[in-house]
Amino acid sequence: MSGRTVIRGGLVITASDEIHADVLIEDGRVAALASSGTPAAEAWVADRVLDATGKYVIPGGVDAHTHMELPFGGTFASDTFETGTRAAAWGGTTTIVDFAVQSVGHTLREGLDAWHAKAEGNCAVDYGFHMIVSDVNQETLKEMDLLVEEGVTSFKQFMAYPGVFYSDDGQILRAMQRSADNGGLIMMHAENGIAIDVLVEQALARGETDPRYHGEVRKALLEAEATHRAIKLAQVAGAPLYVVHVSAMEAVAELAKARDEGLNVFGETCPQYLFLSTDNLAEPDFEGAKYVCSTPLRPREHQAKLWQGLRTNDLQVVSTDHCPFCFVGQKELGRGDFSKIPNGLPGVENRMDLLHQAVVDGHISRRRWIEIACATPARMFGMYPQKGTIAPGADADIVIYDPHAEQVMSAETHHMNVDYSAYEGRRTTGRVETVLSRGELVITEREYTGRAGHGVYTPRSTCQYLN
Amino acid sequence: MSGRTVIRGGLVITASDEIHADVLIEDGRVAALASSGTPAAEAWVADRVLDATGKYVIPGGVDAHTHMELPFGGTFASDTFETGTRAAAWGGTTTIVDFAVQSVGHTLREGLDAWHAKAEGNCAVDYGFHMIVSDVNQETLKEMDLLVEEGVTSFKQFMAYPGVFYSDDGQILRAMQRSADNGGLIMMHAENGIAIDVLVEQALARGETDPRYHGEVRKALLEAEATHRAIKLAQVAGAPLYVVHVSAMEAVAELAKARDEGLNVFGETCPQYLFLSTDNLAEPDFEGAKYVCSTPLRPREHQAKLWQGLRTNDLQVVSTDHCPFCFVGQKELGRGDFSKIPNGLPGVENRMDLLHQAVVDGHISRRRWIEIACATPARMFGMYPQKGTIAPGADADIVIYDPHAEQVMSAETHHMNVDYSAYEGRRTTGRVETVLSRGELVITEREYTGRAGHGVYTPRSTCQYLN
Amino acid sequence: MSGRTVIRGGLVITASDEIHADVLIEDGRVAALASSGTPAAEAWVADRVLDATGKYVIPGGVDAHTHMELPFGGTFASDTFETGTRAAAWGGTTTIVDFAVQSVGHTLREGLDAWHAKAEGNCAVDYGFHMIVSDVNQETLKEMDLLVEEGVTSFKQFMAYPGVFYSDDGQILRAMQRSADNGGLIMMHAENGIAIDVLVEQALARGETDPRYHGEVRKALLEAEATHRAIKLAQVAGAPLYVVHVSAMEAVAELAKARDEGLNVFGETCPQYLFLSTDNLAEPDFEGAKYVCSTPLRPREHQAKLWQGLRTNDLQVVSTDHCPFCFVGQKELGRGDFSKIPNGLPGVENRMDLLHQAVVDGHISRRRWIEIACATPARMFGMYPQKGTIAPGADADIVIYDPHAEQVMSAETHHMNVDYSAYEGRRTTGRVETVLSRGELVITEREYTGRAGHGVYTPRSTCQYLN
Amino acid sequence: MSGRTVIRGGLVITASDEIHADVLIEDGRVAALASSGTPAAEAWVADRVLDATGKYVIPGGVDAHTHMELPFGGTFASDTFETGTRAAAWGGTTTIVDFAVQSVGHTLREGLDAWHAKAEGNCAVDYGFHMIVSDVNQETLKEMDLLVEEGVTSFKQFMAYPGVFYSDDGQILRAMQRSADNGGLIMMHAENGIAIDVLVEQALARGETDPRYHGEVRKALLEAEATHRAIKLAQVAGAPLYVVHVSAMEAVAELAKARDEGLNVFGETCPQYLFLSTDNLAEPDFEGAKYVCSTPLRPREHQAKLWQGLRTNDLQVVSTDHCPFCFVGQKELGRGDFSKIPNGLPGVENRMDLLHQAVVDGHISRRRWIEIACATPARMFGMYPQKGTIAPGADADIVIYDPHAEQVMSAETHHMNVDYSAYEGRRTTGRVETVLSRGELVITEREYTGRAGHGVYTPRSTCQYLN
Repeated sequence: MSGRTVIRGGLVITASDEIHADVLIEDGRVAALASSGTPAAEAWVADRVLDATGKYVIPGGVDAHTHMELPFGGTFASDTFETGTRAAAWGGTTTIVDFAVQSVGHTLREGLDAWHAKAEGNCAVDYGFHMIVSDVNQETLKEMDLLVEEGVTSFKQFMAYPGVFYSDDGQILRAMQRSADNGGLIMMHAENGIAIDVLVEQALARGETDPRYHGEVRKALLEAEATHRAIKLAQVAGAPLYVVHVSAMEAVAELAKARDEGLNVFGETCPQYLFLSTDNLAEPDFEGAKYVCSTPLRPREHQAKLWQGLRTNDLQVVSTDHCPFCFVGQKELGRGDFSKIPNGLPGVENRMDLLHQAVVDGHISRRRWIEIACATPARMFGMYPQKGTIAPGADADIVIYDPHAEQVMSAETHHMNVDYSAYEGRRTTGRVETVLSRGELVITEREYTGRAGHGVYTPRSTCQYLN
Repeated sequence: MSGRTVIRGGLVITASDEIHADVLIEDGRVAALASSGTPAAEAWVADRVLDATGKYVIPGGVDAHTHMELPFGGTFASDTFETGTRAAAWGGTTTIVDFAVQSVGHTLREGLDAWHAKAEGNCAVDYGFHMIVSDVNQETLKEMDLLVEEGVTSFKQFMAYPGVFYSDDGQILRAMQRSADNGGLIMMHAENGIAIDVLVEQALARGETDPRYHGEVRKALLEAEATHRAIKLAQVAGAPLYVVHVSAMEAVAELAKARDEGLNVFGETCPQYLFLSTDNLAEPDFEGAKYVCSTPLRPREHQAKLWQGLRTNDLQVVSTDHCPFCFVGQKELGRGDFSKIPNGLPGVENRMDLLHQAVVDGHISRRRWIEIACATPARMFGMYPQKGTIAPGADADIVIYDPHAEQVMSAETHHMNVDYSAYEGRRTTGRVETVLSRGELVITEREYTGRAGHGVYTPRSTCQYLN
Repeated sequence: MSGRTVIRGGLVITASDEIHADVLIEDGRVAALASSGTPAAEAWVADRVLDATGKYVIPGGVDAHTHMELPFGGTFASDTFETGTRAAAWGGTTTIVDFAVQSVGHTLREGLDAWHAKAEGNCAVDYGFHMIVSDVNQETLKEMDLLVEEGVTSFKQFMAYPGVFYSDDGQILRAMQRSADNGGLIMMHAENGIAIDVLVEQALARGETDPRYHGEVRKALLEAEATHRAIKLAQVAGAPLYVVHVSAMEAVAELAKARDEGLNVFGETCPQYLFLSTDNLAEPDFEGAKYVCSTPLRPREHQAKLWQGLRTNDLQVVSTDHCPFCFVGQKELGRGDFSKIPNGLPGVENRMDLLHQAVVDGHISRRRWIEIACATPARMFGMYPQKGTIAPGADADIVIYDPHAEQVMSAETHHMNVDYSAYEGRRTTGRVETVLSRGELVITEREYTGRAGHGVYTPRSTCQYLN
Repeated sequence: MSGRTVIRGGLVITASDEIHADVLIEDGRVAALASSGTPAAEAWVADRVLDATGKYVIPGGVDAHTHMELPFGGTFASDTFETGTRAAAWGGTTTIVDFAVQSVGHTLREGLDAWHAKAEGNCAVDYGFHMIVSDVNQETLKEMDLLVEEGVTSFKQFMAYPGVFYSDDGQILRAMQRSADNGGLIMMHAENGIAIDVLVEQALARGETDPRYHGEVRKALLEAEATHRAIKLAQVAGAPLYVVHVSAMEAVAELAKARDEGLNVFGETCPQYLFLSTDNLAEPDFEGAKYVCSTPLRPREHQAKLWQGLRTNDLQVVSTDHCPFCFVGQKELGRGDFSKIPNGLPGVENRMDLLHQAVVDGHISRRRWIEIACATPARMFGMYPQKGTIAPGADADIVIYDPHAEQVMSAETHHMNVDYSAYEGRRTTGRVETVLSRGELVITEREYTGRAGHGVYTPRSTCQYLN
């Protein structure tokens, strides 16, 4: 590699600007931007010139929520770091932040080491780690400080899944207090799992076993309640809070209210909540199982409020919560008992395209597309401006995007290691053409030219998005 | 001029980024940015090199609310376009948007022509115009369309000042409906002037004539009420709305609520509301008159909510509402009757420094400083990225800012044509060193090197800040 | 009259209690209540015994909003005080509070005298007056004090109908300030009439002349806006506020918010908003004109929020705004121009029955029925406990109500002087059997036994409903 | 007893009315009311005539929240049913509803039987029971149905006190679902005890052991959070909810919001929150321990919001949470560790007087006094109109109250079995003169003329206060 690359003639779109500029890459980084056609730009001599005329030149996507190879419900998410990051690259995403898992009774370190082992040498694009904290105790709290120092600066807790990942309000408060001190950011799965488990038991007892009941028992009110509770605990702790996979409009309202009060509270949603609904969960012949994830899909009317939240910045980030399970052999574990369906959907390859479609459909502007999919996740998790923008000094993680190409999403053609697409048959406008990761071509005019192991671990600083 | 200029070694701060980069200027525009020290940067040869080592390199400020030479209460604002824009340049502001005034019974065109005549050939930095609409009728509505086409894309109406600038709700609704069609943006002075005038009359009848009563009769509730009403009228019209000089926390709350609902509603505040209070209005010996403006200064506790609004983006812009009247001979017109004190404060020279002080004090981040003072006003009023940022293609309106220098604000040393400073004796950290306007040096290491007439009229596109 | 009457064996329902009790009437007043069957009750000897076994014994209704013989749009409301109060008695209402009207340029006294002349000697049941203030000036304000002293303790202002009844915000503020001093209660017609008139003009210009456009131009948002504004003006004045004929759910929300803040803000709605909707306004062949009133009927979904408001006490009173115009010859004035349709509906005879139906339908409890229709209007307008309850010392205005009888509402059978029923064909459960006014039988087992002139003017004290 | 009693000449005040009436009592019940001085009243012949001229005649107070002999923290509340109900009578309260306690591992029945045993034959006035549910399981849920049928229609759960009374959200949801079916009413101690216990541990570890830290760790935000959570769980269950001892203004706001949405959510506060504050908790020499209760006393500024909530009916009931522990020997258990101070204050004797003082001070009206202290608690807990009002058929639980007498509250003179008064030295206007319980004189012109055993168990119907 190395040497100099110039991307000529595209419309460079960042979270803040849309400019007609050429981009000069030196040593894997953006060295300079110059107005296309100016003497300054024309003067550049490069080893490689990529023509982006008529295309967008955008920062590579940052997907801050993936679960490669996650063990869940007796099985594993079907994408490895190798297949998953390759699919990410195909979809224009050049950085993922995955979740290392602390098991109860084990240290954070053990979990983190295990996840490093899974990822190292296998990734097509760069990656970082959040830490799932399943067991808050004095030792864990001390380890949190150490992890922050070495670049694992965010910690996920669950108000759902009692007996598995669940933390009680005291454990949450303690972790939040610690993060208030060490600069870490608590990420919250906000659902009242204790109450939901009662409803699950009652539904099953009534013989309500189909996938659609998954959506009925995990009530929007109980997501909103947990969101409110997490906000109040964070307020008591004096800590910021990031709520993952917000799906209920009532939860958006809680975030909006807290933000109006000036609290550092943030919300992430996912493409599945923006484009799918309980209608999918209700598909016959157990097809609904493909759409089982938690928080669950909601009735359609929630979508408008999520888009609104993205426009009003009450939601800041769109991640995928990519956690694929094959329909055959995995989702099927829950036939006759929706509570046994592994939770999760594939999406890491689809996110950038779906959000571009949202631009086409008028939900968001082009700059907001880049902001919620690249810049803000990078800032939120301490990787900016290395990731998430195109600016001198940034990593040359760049996508040349054809805004006019059309495609049809399908399991036939996607690159994720899963036997179905949650968006099967959906036609979208816009397509990734070429992808660079630190200046290297990973996708070249829709050919995969990358390699496992190019992607490296990316330690992160603390949150850069606070008020 | 022309030739090439390079600004070397500074920290380039925009609304979105902070990067160590050199800036190349060609033909009055930013041609390129390159990481300082890279071969790309080092390769640049220039006619003039400005050393910004240890300094900030920021976009020139955009002050979207000034009133040079405004006729008010039988006198005129004491800054002409010449003195006012020179003072702006001293304060790091390179673009102002002033208000042309339609008088009742006259056309918009007449007002606009008059203001062009005042400004043309006299300005040190670039300028644009909003249009104050005092007389909504069928002819005026048609003229609005024409003005939008020629770059006057924002129209101010007043819910205050009955008999002078006042528009009733029907006139406001009609203008909003028109702006919904033609892309114009209604700017609103939101105070219930009809009710306030009753309170003024009653206060004067009680012998309450001192300047502090100006603050008491113009109640926060009546600002909030008008803000709410303007929002609802805009909602009926399907139009966006920009509320000027928000000072009351209750008004901020109305904006926050509307924004939560997804409405395109925006709020501007001013340094005087952030740094001054009714304590100033209550200064003895008629000194309070120096601080008479409308909306009025509020009790101190409002300040925290304004800062919060700026952090949560419920307020988007800080402008000055620069409208100076000398204490001697002008403010004195209101001795014995606060309602005769000309309304307005000087500030165009102080804004960038006061907001940098807010960075030092921890109210806002550096990037937010640039966003509220440069980028957002430029976007809001259709001048981006020409103004408000440092990016390839943008006008080279650039300030080299010394973040460590200290200064003391004073009428002794300021350049505004007014005999007092609203911030007399206030010590601030940070100072403008050098200012370029379209690549030309206007301030050079704290010497004025500009000239009247350099600044040119800047037609504007429609609002670029909508959801 | 005189002598003693006992009502035996009924269920006495008041706003607070449901008791099986006999009621003893002496000299036109309730002398005593005693548990049915006790020695205390059995000991009573009476001239007349009314058997209420199996029936309800309820206070006579208090309709705090009627417009008998109102001049409007070049015609007069079709019920005189004679026909209207007789119809009221048929419907179980024994007190009305009608609106005397000040014409612009005239005194309150002149208006009040005129209304006394219309009513005196003609009424079947008791009556009081509110005063419509059309012309706020120093003289009017002084007259308000006098009127309060003589029992006209409430004053209506209009934010709608510019050029007719309209008061601007300054006039409203002055009247509110006065009422804060003299104990009067401002009643507000809350619609932004200035904005609405623009929409009316535009609709007619587009050829939208049918009755249904009446509902479209008088937007819910503009009712809510005016409601909010009236609340804020009342807050500035330190005065209580009563908003008449609330129809929009957004207006209910404004009242609820204000009440949460502890303000003395009250809301009235009417049966037409609870039982009818824009579906009626859209009836073909100009039939919609029958349902034209202001505020207008709203889409059906507003009804649920009005019922909720009545349950949560964010709305306190149900009055009729009885203001009938015959379809033939009166409503027809607006063929081809909805703005010329006289505004108003008949209802004084239907209110108690419709609200009892609401009890049957589960919207409200029996006690709440009496509270919103009898007790609270009496308290609100200073007539309690003389009117609105059954308690020792109260006027013997009593209705024996058969909760099981069925009836069908129809112009064929009603007693109002109007050629249509707004509820034509509606079947309801419950019927007035016998009505006493100050101990005299006005309706006796569904025969009219009253007489014009029995009803007398009832001066009122100030509001008894404040926090 | 028996025979007839007449109370002559007083002002009879109920929640709805203030009338000058004589009250006739036959067989322990109110037989009749008659206007004083009418033939109807004069005709009454009685065995006993009580002169109430110049006095109020009010319903006996209903204190819906007492804890006689409660075991807590290794000791017992110092009032027995005998001493406590006698003190209640002295204070004008003629009905208490105490809390039977289910211990973990035991049935509801066992707890209820134990409490019956404590109370039976010992009480001076009537009493009922709520049931504290500490152990929700299938058996408990079935028992709830039985208890409702036999008159124990309300069930208290705790979100505080983990390991003692605490129920988790699943147990709460199940109990609420059951109550939605059987008509029971869930009463909630709403504090996030899990989080509070973390703060307690941390405070003690920092050496913060004084009583005032009790108030600091039990944060208002954590009361409000739990209140919100309980509301949402009730909404999911479709059940009404009654929140006990609301002390934080943020919790009032949650109740107000839920009520605006039409939910059947109710709030109780107590005199200590209305009249005392954290200033008392901070009294030196461990005196603050006298004021330790949970929820804790709050800073003074909360009081205004509680009064407001009582006026706006966002709070409906004032009970005492009477749970006295002597300073010597009991409160002292917590010297050096605030968490060991038994929680609770004496108050059953003070409530009616303190609330009358609130009438004198202008916080509430006389009728509202009776409503929040007598009528609403009786309705809320299914005892109306037997208790809580003066109406034909009601129990003759009546207080003759001298509104002009002055008294000074003091442990020297009070009748509660506790060695301090929370209101020591407080001067109040108004005093109980005579108290009847079911027609018998318990207090006669400030002499105790009652007897242990007069008071009987009062089974209750389900809540009569629902929307």
